[in-house]
Amino acid sequence: MQHSRRFRLPGTDPHFASDNISGAHPEIMAAVMEANLDTPAYGGDQFTDDFHEMLDTQFGTGAYGFPVFNGTGANIVSLQAVSHPYSSVICTDTSHVYTSEASAPVRAGISLKPQPHLDGKLRPEDIAKVVASDLGNPQATQPTAVTVSQVTEMGTVYTPEELTAICNAAHDAGLAIHMDGARLAPAAAALGLDLHGATTALGVDILSLGATKNGGLGADAVVVLSNRVPEDTLTPIIKYTTQLSSKTSYLSAQLTTMFSTSLWHRNATTANAAATRLAQGLGDIAGVEVQTPQANTVLAAMPDNLVTRLREHYVAHLWGHNTAGLPIVRLVCSWATTDAKITDLLKVLAA
Amino acid sequence: MQHSRRFRLPGTDPHFASDNISGAHPEIMAAVMEANLDTPAYGGDQFTDDFHEMLDTQFGTGAYGFPVFNGTGANIVSLQAVSHPYSSVICTDTSHVYTSEASAPVRAGISLKPQPHLDGKLRPEDIAKVVASDLGNPQATQPTAVTVSQVTEMGTVYTPEELTAICNAAHDAGLAIHMDGARLAPAAAALGLDLHGATTALGVDILSLGATKNGGLGADAVVVLSNRVPEDTLTPIIKYTTQLSSKTSYLSAQLTTMFSTSLWHRNATTANAAATRLAQGLGDIAGVEVQTPQANTVLAAMPDNLVTRLREHYVAHLWGHNTAGLPIVRLVCSWATTDAKITDLLKVLAA
Amino acid sequence: MQHSRRFRLPGTDPHFASDNISGAHPEIMAAVMEANLDTPAYGGDQFTDDFHEMLDTQFGTGAYGFPVFNGTGANIVSLQAVSHPYSSVICTDTSHVYTSEASAPVRAGISLKPQPHLDGKLRPEDIAKVVASDLGNPQATQPTAVTVSQVTEMGTVYTPEELTAICNAAHDAGLAIHMDGARLAPAAAALGLDLHGATTALGVDILSLGATKNGGLGADAVVVLSNRVPEDTLTPIIKYTTQLSSKTSYLSAQLTTMFSTSLWHRNATTANAAATRLAQGLGDIAGVEVQTPQANTVLAAMPDNLVTRLREHYVAHLWGHNTAGLPIVRLVCSWATTDAKITDLLKVLAA
Amino acid sequence: MQHSRRFRLPGTDPHFASDNISGAHPEIMAAVMEANLDTPAYGGDQFTDDFHEMLDTQFGTGAYGFPVFNGTGANIVSLQAVSHPYSSVICTDTSHVYTSEASAPVRAGISLKPQPHLDGKLRPEDIAKVVASDLGNPQATQPTAVTVSQVTEMGTVYTPEELTAICNAAHDAGLAIHMDGARLAPAAAALGLDLHGATTALGVDILSLGATKNGGLGADAVVVLSNRVPEDTLTPIIKYTTQLSSKTSYLSAQLTTMFSTSLWHRNATTANAAATRLAQGLGDIAGVEVQTPQANTVLAAMPDNLVTRLREHYVAHLWGHNTAGLPIVRLVCSWATTDAKITDLLKVLAA
Repeated sequence: MQHSRRFRLPGTDPHFASDNISGAHPEIMAAVMEANLDTPAYGGDQFTDDFHEMLDTQFGTGAYGFPVFNGTGANIVSLQAVSHPYSSVICTDTSHVYTSEASAPVRAGISLKPQPHLDGKLRPEDIAKVVASDLGNPQATQPTAVTVSQVTEMGTVYTPEELTAICNAAHDAGLAIHMDGARLAPAAAALGLDLHGATTALGVDILSLGATKNGGLGADAVVVLSNRVPEDTLTPIIKYTTQLSSKTSYLSAQLTTMFSTSLWHRNATTANAAATRLAQGLGDIAGVEVQTPQANTVLAAMPDNLVTRLREHYVAHLWGHNTAGLPIVRLVCSWATTDAKITDLLKVLAA
Repeated sequence: MQHSRRFRLPGTDPHFASDNISGAHPEIMAAVMEANLDTPAYGGDQFTDDFHEMLDTQFGTGAYGFPVFNGTGANIVSLQAVSHPYSSVICTDTSHVYTSEASAPVRAGISLKPQPHLDGKLRPEDIAKVVASDLGNPQATQPTAVTVSQVTEMGTVYTPEELTAICNAAHDAGLAIHMDGARLAPAAAALGLDLHGATTALGVDILSLGATKNGGLGADAVVVLSNRVPEDTLTPIIKYTTQLSSKTSYLSAQLTTMFSTSLWHRNATTANAAATRLAQGLGDIAGVEVQTPQANTVLAAMPDNLVTRLREHYVAHLWGHNTAGLPIVRLVCSWATTDAKITDLLKVLAA
Repeated sequence: MQHSRRFRLPGTDPHFASDNISGAHPEIMAAVMEANLDTPAYGGDQFTDDFHEMLDTQFGTGAYGFPVFNGTGANIVSLQAVSHPYSSVICTDTSHVYTSEASAPVRAGISLKPQPHLDGKLRPEDIAKVVASDLGNPQATQPTAVTVSQVTEMGTVYTPEELTAICNAAHDAGLAIHMDGARLAPAAAALGLDLHGATTALGVDILSLGATKNGGLGADAVVVLSNRVPEDTLTPIIKYTTQLSSKTSYLSAQLTTMFSTSLWHRNATTANAAATRLAQGLGDIAGVEVQTPQANTVLAAMPDNLVTRLREHYVAHLWGHNTAGLPIVRLVCSWATTDAKITDLLKVLAA
Repeated sequence: MQHSRRFRLPGTDPHFASDNISGAHPEIMAAVMEANLDTPAYGGDQFTDDFHEMLDTQFGTGAYGFPVFNGTGANIVSLQAVSHPYSSVICTDTSHVYTSEASAPVRAGISLKPQPHLDGKLRPEDIAKVVASDLGNPQATQPTAVTVSQVTEMGTVYTPEELTAICNAAHDAGLAIHMDGARLAPAAAALGLDLHGATTALGVDILSLGATKNGGLGADAVVVLSNRVPEDTLTPIIKYTTQLSSKTSYLSAQLTTMFSTSLWHRNATTANAAATRLAQGLGDIAGVEVQTPQANTVLAAMPDNLVTRLREHYVAHLWGHNTAGLPIVRLVCSWATTDAKITDLLKVLAA
């Protein structure tokens, strides 16, 4: 038996591969050290009390939720909370839950209805179409929820108006709205909104709140924002989805530190600004076509020889092709992306 | 909406409630700090390379596996690895997977066949009984695995001879053996065995290796010890069970530090010795009947008034009744249990 | 590739192997012929209207349900109707759903809690024990239902008093009661009760109503008898469990004919009387120990040489051993068991 | 509690709603009557022996399979046979398994990858696209099978060349091909092919063989046509999917009678010819646009007032809209569709 079983991406410097390759921010590490105490298990601790208070303060009176280990866990728990054994969830065909959670959704009984995306986004008419064909049809799964990713998988950011329209379309049909907020922080920072304004205020019912990609050591959360989510099922779902930590305090400490202070905003602003600089630099290179980044993700189309040169040095995901047939490379900036990092990458391509 | 949704046990001092209420050992915290770097995600990092090497060294050539977040994750991943859609897993009716993982097994498609325990243990004849009734019977689930807990949920420790007999019975019938080793460290220390000697050498095929309860911050692992476990399914199972960490390095660093040094043994020895002292002290109190602990768990029967007095100060789980009808209290010691802690508890009861 | 994939039991004459080997009663065949018309699909037909009226008349005002194909379907649909994703169902360790539905329960998300049986029966204290350990325990599956088989798998019949006590124990704890009535007809006939008296009147909430084993061509039903079963979930469950027939009329016609006339009672009485005669005859054979049958199942302990002789001629299931270590053979009589059949079998053993 | 729980479509005459509303053909009823005997249960009977021989004869040496109750059962069993816990199945977004089996696929762990259809058909490039993005990608479900419907849900029939190209594309990528042949008979008859020529010879690996819609009383089958389907899993899957009939003989008798004689072809030819006549008649009505039917399904676009008039008399499913925005009505002919039936319907619209 060999060690080939581990996951390994090509390339050497992983920095721009995703925002999850960066370490934890020093304030997060300090919070974890402070939480290193005897505490009641399974969330009965003071750090988790603080986490609950943070949710109430930052997301609106009555918001509640629970820490989980990772983004897959947050999504799978959240979607189960708004599903039942004969229900379906409407998403885009680029959504992370459809393309990148492997068979976690189907194994959890979540039936996805992927719709063609527009710049990574879902539209109210997509919801209307599925509802028209499926709701009340005994041959069809019954739509009970919609999921949107903010930032989207195509690097775009829904405007508040777009999200409000989607939430209204969902609610009018009796569906709940889930937001995959693995990158909520960069989206909210880009929109100039606080956490409540970027979620609850727009009509979101349940949220996967991501800290891991924004400078966490490893912590996300499921947050319930409205009474469209059935009560009393969240904690059992967390347990049976294998996402209940005995030492919850370490997760709670990270989340409270991230979201009850300006840390989420500082880290996201750093990442977004880095993406802007990176995109500007890439745009100056002959043959590279780059979209103006809306948050911390940069999508750049470039000729094959540049892709090859880039991947000799960097781990970088390919993200389809542009209309001219050029491969698109996805580069993601994080709280830890420095000017020097950007300059180095640009040098490789400009060489 | 209220905050009542969190898990909360009665009592004030949680220390003896379980070994998962203690914080992380300083060497573990140091290892996590050292791992705080840019690294490839999903296990492509150097810390996970070291973890793989540790498995090979400590559990025998060819052992392989992957870090997971918690014990539930380790168990549910492991049992799926030795199950298929029409298979069953033989266990005791006191086993953690049957009594304490809520509906995580059934949701993962794991069909358990609980057998009456003897001091928390399974016996070869239990395996024979299920095999005789079910194997080849088209009306029955087909047994493919056996799971044993070491330390058991009743605080006992299987002897090497007992485990060898169970492994032989399983293997003779074509079944694989899983060990729930959430408390493998205290068991191995109590038996005077190294990690290989306590697992691979006895015939165990797949292991839930626990670090969380032995001074970890939060990390366990699934470890494959033989070729009775199908190859190439472990990593997909980890992903779809929501147990794949993007920042695997933090988990790997804990596990490598715990098991490639003497730390696992030092922590376990401390916990076991504390349990012995606690049991001796309890035995000196009138009305208390205590079993000699085999590892770090103390089961003590005592009159109701003592239980009441104890629970005014301590979180303590009730663990059934003895033959005389007295309630049994379970108290668990950890790497962090000091003499002072023990003295304080004894004072409460002796008062 | 060979034809060995089919199920095949040893022996030549299958008659006494089970009551499902007998063909359909002539009145059932006539009903199927009459139903051979153009009719709306999926239960929108007149024959299914009649079926619904039959349920209301025979099981009490408000009873409703739907035809399904077989007993496995009836059980798996029923138990899903009283389960949710974190619930469990209490049963005996001899119950058909635990021993003989293969992995159908686990694949449908049904978590069984098998309890040691007494003569094939469950007792109120079994319910109390599981409720005490599991209800409200976040580590445990949450009991939501109890299932009992009438006739039991050990050939016994619950008395009305026994069933009432079980139903009360379940209801007091907030659980629903399911009855696996694959053999309800012989049980009700043996008890001298009508269909309502044998089910609804005793407190049963949901019923697997069997016609197949009592002279049907192939039809069973799920019948809801109380408002403890959530409304509006039954029809989706039937569809996603693959138990929705497009040509429901053929199933409905069988069920209505069976249960709105005396046919169920005539067939069951024939089967029960045959079992009594068979048991008397077996009791006269040296070395055979036979229990007085309570319905249409005969359990007879006999020496190995008699078992061998019997199985040279007859398909017969072994059913454990008696306290003296003799193998027990199960023989089941049906509506089609004639005196000649019984005489023939007795001759084989008496030879 | 009311009787509103049953399925009920609007309209009075159900005849053209689907081919599943017609009764059983007299030869099928005769076969069921002949099978009304004591027989071994679960497929150990002579009628099932004959069924196995029929498969071998009609579908090619080595073909094997098992009867099931209905088309949902055949599809869900078949797709499980070519799936594993982390696999996906490629289909069109109009496929019956995606649109009309409710949540049966997700509940059985089948992860569907719906692709935009072209006239109801899948194309080799659809397979290539999913394979390129998902195969070997640890974040994605792993494609293991492709499913096509013949006749398609849009009433079209794949040509042998189209199917061969799809099968080759699937096999080249290591995937198995499933055919949903609920309407295989009309398709094969329309193509002038025998059963082997319409399936095995084209590269199909596993087949849902439909008899119910072609004059059966209620019987379909799962048929394995190649060694790309794992052996020894089919019978357990049938059992745990609740599709194992104790009285299999009644199902086998129908299937053997249907497919070992010319009955399948006679019934399908009748249905196809009726569809041609119906389409011709509809085409003569002002305002109606009708496609030339390729088998027994007629899709006709017509103004709203004609739809209303039609539905006052007939149960008829709406099937989207044509490019001019007119609603499309689906009408299906069967073995029992007479000229008089067609004339009556045309009179209603022409009035």
